[in-house]
Amino acid sequence: MGKTKVAIVGASGYSGEELVNLLIRHKGIEITAVTSRQFSGKTIAEVYPRFASFPIAKSLKFTNPQPTELANLADIVFLALPHGVAAEYAVPVINAGKKVIDLSADFRLRSADIYKEFYGHDHPAPELLKTAVYGLPEIYRDEIKTASLIASPGCYPTSILLPTIPLLRKRIIDPSQIIINSLSGVSGAGRKAEIDYLFCECNESMRAYGIPKHRHLSEIEEQLSFAAQTRVIAQFTPHLIPVNRGILTTICLTPSTDLQNATPEVINSEMEKAYAEFYSSAIFVRVLGNKALPDTKHVVGTNVIEFGWKIDPRTKRIILVSAIDNLVKGAGGQAIQSMNIMCGFEETEGLSL
Amino acid sequence: MGKTKVAIVGASGYSGEELVNLLIRHKGIEITAVTSRQFSGKTIAEVYPRFASFPIAKSLKFTNPQPTELANLADIVFLALPHGVAAEYAVPVINAGKKVIDLSADFRLRSADIYKEFYGHDHPAPELLKTAVYGLPEIYRDEIKTASLIASPGCYPTSILLPTIPLLRKRIIDPSQIIINSLSGVSGAGRKAEIDYLFCECNESMRAYGIPKHRHLSEIEEQLSFAAQTRVIAQFTPHLIPVNRGILTTICLTPSTDLQNATPEVINSEMEKAYAEFYSSAIFVRVLGNKALPDTKHVVGTNVIEFGWKIDPRTKRIILVSAIDNLVKGAGGQAIQSMNIMCGFEETEGLSL
Amino acid sequence: MGKTKVAIVGASGYSGEELVNLLIRHKGIEITAVTSRQFSGKTIAEVYPRFASFPIAKSLKFTNPQPTELANLADIVFLALPHGVAAEYAVPVINAGKKVIDLSADFRLRSADIYKEFYGHDHPAPELLKTAVYGLPEIYRDEIKTASLIASPGCYPTSILLPTIPLLRKRIIDPSQIIINSLSGVSGAGRKAEIDYLFCECNESMRAYGIPKHRHLSEIEEQLSFAAQTRVIAQFTPHLIPVNRGILTTICLTPSTDLQNATPEVINSEMEKAYAEFYSSAIFVRVLGNKALPDTKHVVGTNVIEFGWKIDPRTKRIILVSAIDNLVKGAGGQAIQSMNIMCGFEETEGLSL
Amino acid sequence: MGKTKVAIVGASGYSGEELVNLLIRHKGIEITAVTSRQFSGKTIAEVYPRFASFPIAKSLKFTNPQPTELANLADIVFLALPHGVAAEYAVPVINAGKKVIDLSADFRLRSADIYKEFYGHDHPAPELLKTAVYGLPEIYRDEIKTASLIASPGCYPTSILLPTIPLLRKRIIDPSQIIINSLSGVSGAGRKAEIDYLFCECNESMRAYGIPKHRHLSEIEEQLSFAAQTRVIAQFTPHLIPVNRGILTTICLTPSTDLQNATPEVINSEMEKAYAEFYSSAIFVRVLGNKALPDTKHVVGTNVIEFGWKIDPRTKRIILVSAIDNLVKGAGGQAIQSMNIMCGFEETEGLSL
Repeated sequence: MGKTKVAIVGASGYSGEELVNLLIRHKGIEITAVTSRQFSGKTIAEVYPRFASFPIAKSLKFTNPQPTELANLADIVFLALPHGVAAEYAVPVINAGKKVIDLSADFRLRSADIYKEFYGHDHPAPELLKTAVYGLPEIYRDEIKTASLIASPGCYPTSILLPTIPLLRKRIIDPSQIIINSLSGVSGAGRKAEIDYLFCECNESMRAYGIPKHRHLSEIEEQLSFAAQTRVIAQFTPHLIPVNRGILTTICLTPSTDLQNATPEVINSEMEKAYAEFYSSAIFVRVLGNKALPDTKHVVGTNVIEFGWKIDPRTKRIILVSAIDNLVKGAGGQAIQSMNIMCGFEETEGLSL
Repeated sequence: MGKTKVAIVGASGYSGEELVNLLIRHKGIEITAVTSRQFSGKTIAEVYPRFASFPIAKSLKFTNPQPTELANLADIVFLALPHGVAAEYAVPVINAGKKVIDLSADFRLRSADIYKEFYGHDHPAPELLKTAVYGLPEIYRDEIKTASLIASPGCYPTSILLPTIPLLRKRIIDPSQIIINSLSGVSGAGRKAEIDYLFCECNESMRAYGIPKHRHLSEIEEQLSFAAQTRVIAQFTPHLIPVNRGILTTICLTPSTDLQNATPEVINSEMEKAYAEFYSSAIFVRVLGNKALPDTKHVVGTNVIEFGWKIDPRTKRIILVSAIDNLVKGAGGQAIQSMNIMCGFEETEGLSL
Repeated sequence: MGKTKVAIVGASGYSGEELVNLLIRHKGIEITAVTSRQFSGKTIAEVYPRFASFPIAKSLKFTNPQPTELANLADIVFLALPHGVAAEYAVPVINAGKKVIDLSADFRLRSADIYKEFYGHDHPAPELLKTAVYGLPEIYRDEIKTASLIASPGCYPTSILLPTIPLLRKRIIDPSQIIINSLSGVSGAGRKAEIDYLFCECNESMRAYGIPKHRHLSEIEEQLSFAAQTRVIAQFTPHLIPVNRGILTTICLTPSTDLQNATPEVINSEMEKAYAEFYSSAIFVRVLGNKALPDTKHVVGTNVIEFGWKIDPRTKRIILVSAIDNLVKGAGGQAIQSMNIMCGFEETEGLSL
Repeated sequence: MGKTKVAIVGASGYSGEELVNLLIRHKGIEITAVTSRQFSGKTIAEVYPRFASFPIAKSLKFTNPQPTELANLADIVFLALPHGVAAEYAVPVINAGKKVIDLSADFRLRSADIYKEFYGHDHPAPELLKTAVYGLPEIYRDEIKTASLIASPGCYPTSILLPTIPLLRKRIIDPSQIIINSLSGVSGAGRKAEIDYLFCECNESMRAYGIPKHRHLSEIEEQLSFAAQTRVIAQFTPHLIPVNRGILTTICLTPSTDLQNATPEVINSEMEKAYAEFYSSAIFVRVLGNKALPDTKHVVGTNVIEFGWKIDPRTKRIILVSAIDNLVKGAGGQAIQSMNIMCGFEETEGLSL
């Protein structure tokens, strides 16, 4: 039987390149199309010399098909396009009965109003918001299995939601006191020819940006609210750090009123139980507990999220730290993890631990 | 009239090297001694080839004098030694009527008990804690003028205290809700031959450490408490980032009860007034206001602290971000700024804006 | 049938860690022992948190066996030990009929005299020098198949020999005019707690070192001499560059007397023919020709060497540039490539293109 | 008496920014104009927040004057413009009797033909090539004193010419065997919004480029030819390295026929004599001899060139290594050094050792 046919639309940015990097090695699929306006007519090897030793990189050329043509090219279409543009491609593919895994922000929210608030324009296909599944496999595995449209989460949200959702669902933390500081490598800014992201502007530099209302905050708060069953407003401060890849997120949390007289030991034990319940079979989640703290260099190149925490005995606050590779677990890898679940492949196929 | 004679004790670490770097160019002083057990007998040029074009670097050799000999060598003695060791050198110099500017933590606290709590051993010279002046010139300029013992602040504390103290003194913020995330370049860890600070362990890595009770927290809280006139317990999470120099500190603050119904505009205006009052003549303080955010690359190599902020209209919290060079404003530069004030030199002599 | 049992001796340095990284994912083998004096008693996961998601990393502990015990633990023993020490471990394993793949310099030379000249001590097991095979698979594939002792090449030599040997064998270049400049990432210096390799000493630094007689020159010259069938003395200048991984080698070559009146086009065509003859089926060799130049970022993480060249029409010299990952094709990956050939696995098993 | 008035034309690139950085601290001059098409109307502080603590940065706005207006604005005009454009600005300033220090390549060559060969277009003002002085102060100090048009050298040429010219003039080396490998930090590529110079494309990357005929080769060869009194063709291979600043140049040289039977000791002694003769009073030249090798981190931020060498006893070749800061000694600093000489300021005024 033939392999699953996969198209990568918008394969000229860092997320698209990472999709190529991972899918070109994936045993269950065949890349049948890569698209890019800019690179149309060039082979993968010409655009990305690092893949030139794969035969397909020398044979497969970038094309620039119409959205309506995509469904003929593949069974599964990955969209690595800017928000606002992705919807235009998703609609005809889904209408033709094929599946879409969208890495943009277009289908991550349930609310078209919040989309408009954060993205500054009307949602281009609001009717799809109900059917889209938020592609965080450790939380929505069952929904992913049967979805036709996956909205793969943003990088910051992934690093924040996986350690926080179990604590909210188990009412261990106060949903009104979530203070997040995230550090991102420069690939998070995309492959854009802008002065701000030149080597000499980023190297030996550290800066905060996007305060107080970074776009990712919309999906962070929506997902936290689902978990808390109450509306969550979070404080989120992203920073740009001179590494290629990686997100390190430090979250300052306050125990819920139920636990306010609990000792740090009790709080810790509740956290461990919650994580054991949620993630004991989640192969890409590495729970470090309260003895160790993550380092992005432990996860770069892998689809793993690792997180650990400390409970401050003086303030009772929980300091929770997580690390992911923004282009793998935070983008292409997680999208492929969803595909693996959809298609019945091994969940780790094509992905590194 | 002769120049002021200066000794640098412990000139083998990064702070000591930066003191050499700045003092070798300073017009008002003469370096009469550099000391180091490890480098004794070598010239400055042999230890630090980058200074070899200064004649004194070829003539002046490192020595390893007894603490009691130091007072004969210089009018002002800079101590760039580990905590616990500095006190031993400071006492005889002060007893001999000379001045000490100590870059260690030994004299930063007023309380020997808190010293013991955070540093794990009895204070070696508790009688000096009362006379020592905390060398933050923008806050303690008058005391510095006449001090004989300056305890130059730590790098993290400098980045935290300068933007926060005016807000506490003016009761703009709630002293019980101070949540600090700091990012430090690797020189902050000192010049120690340890695996953790090797290039390959730090490059392409981001990690939190020292949670929840980093030693600097003791002086941070003590100074914040003085400003707030109430005991402050702060949340402080430092991180190690792959840059040579620089600290970026992001502080999440809650307006005081007085201002809880105030609009962001009013809060902002109170902040601007407070900073204008405290820092309008502080040449090394660059207040960016709520329009811009700092970048460590704007301050590296200078004695400047820059800070800016945003007020989140959804949470009313203030996100305040500051940047310094940890080795200059956070160590050697600030120590020299204190010396300039003590000696009546121009405050900017030998220091960069 | 059981998997091949593999031991990694000296798994505490960067080469040893990379062997763990690659072998833990290799489908044909089972790691039965990892050894290190320093880490004895700890699990792989404790020493290398990044591997903690592999079950074996939590179960397998580092040990510190006697050399004579190794043969009982594995079918193939990888030695990632300092030169001079490796021989001591290799001898009893080989005597017991098991196979050794040595990543040190101990068995790379045929001449014990040259070993002594470059390494400063007598060769510890000169009788093995005759049977050892230099583990450059693209050159010695047949010998590797049946070898019991593989001397895996150094990182610099790999980057130099693969592009140069075909040109010498085909008499395209003058063997007396080989001028090599290599740039190495800091992992090439090993995981040593030395001031020189601290982040702040390497970052924002570029330096040459080891001039004029770096130890790797011995194996470079010996292999070049075999290819040229005459004694080759090469000029080799290594440099340390602030990247984690990668070697970029630039070789300045003069066409042989036969070709001294040839046009650049003819020289180029001879080069292409030579490489086609030697490497058309060498899956890890990527010949870029005279149109493109390599970049270490295209090969880092892979077992690929890529090289390209330009012929200067004004000087007739060939400027040949190659790139490898020093820890993969330059160390652990190439060692595994040899193992794959020895054991009849797919040559690419466990290795990335 | 008033200060010398200085204009910086094209202050939006890295060289222009470094001119601002150095001139804003220079005691002998006053910046009266900064120009940039792109930034016209903005203050220096708005464009470069790092200079905001200097009062002039808040008062002086970028303008975009006509070339003919410049002479009214300043006594000395620094041009930090692309080649081909600089000439247009230089001509009217010189005709008006003011002085020009040009950092572009427009006036570095004596030959308009070679200019055309390397830069691909006719020279825009060939009549000025005769009066322009190549602004390498250690070689052309006397000519600089009275020049009205200084062509400040390129960064690579500075790193190559200073160590090589004395050896050619003294006939110590063979002018037909000069093989140069240079490593440059990314600021050498300018502040251009191009994908190739993004952080993620440069970090963890090493690459050669511009082979075999980089534009700087034209001035390198012209100056080497003057020194050798014969036409020199050199081999020059530049590389791009992930540091912000710095050039490290490694030159492989062959002793001249006169010295071919000389011992390394004799060759070394001839080199030391030559450098002593040329550079004993050159304050920015640091001759390390054959005992030490340079490191770019020793010179970054300073106007110093340092160089050292080794003589290979096996090949008799000299391996000479130099280091500069490409933006200081390789651009803005050297231009100011020329200005200091022209204006009778201390040669070190505004420049760091």
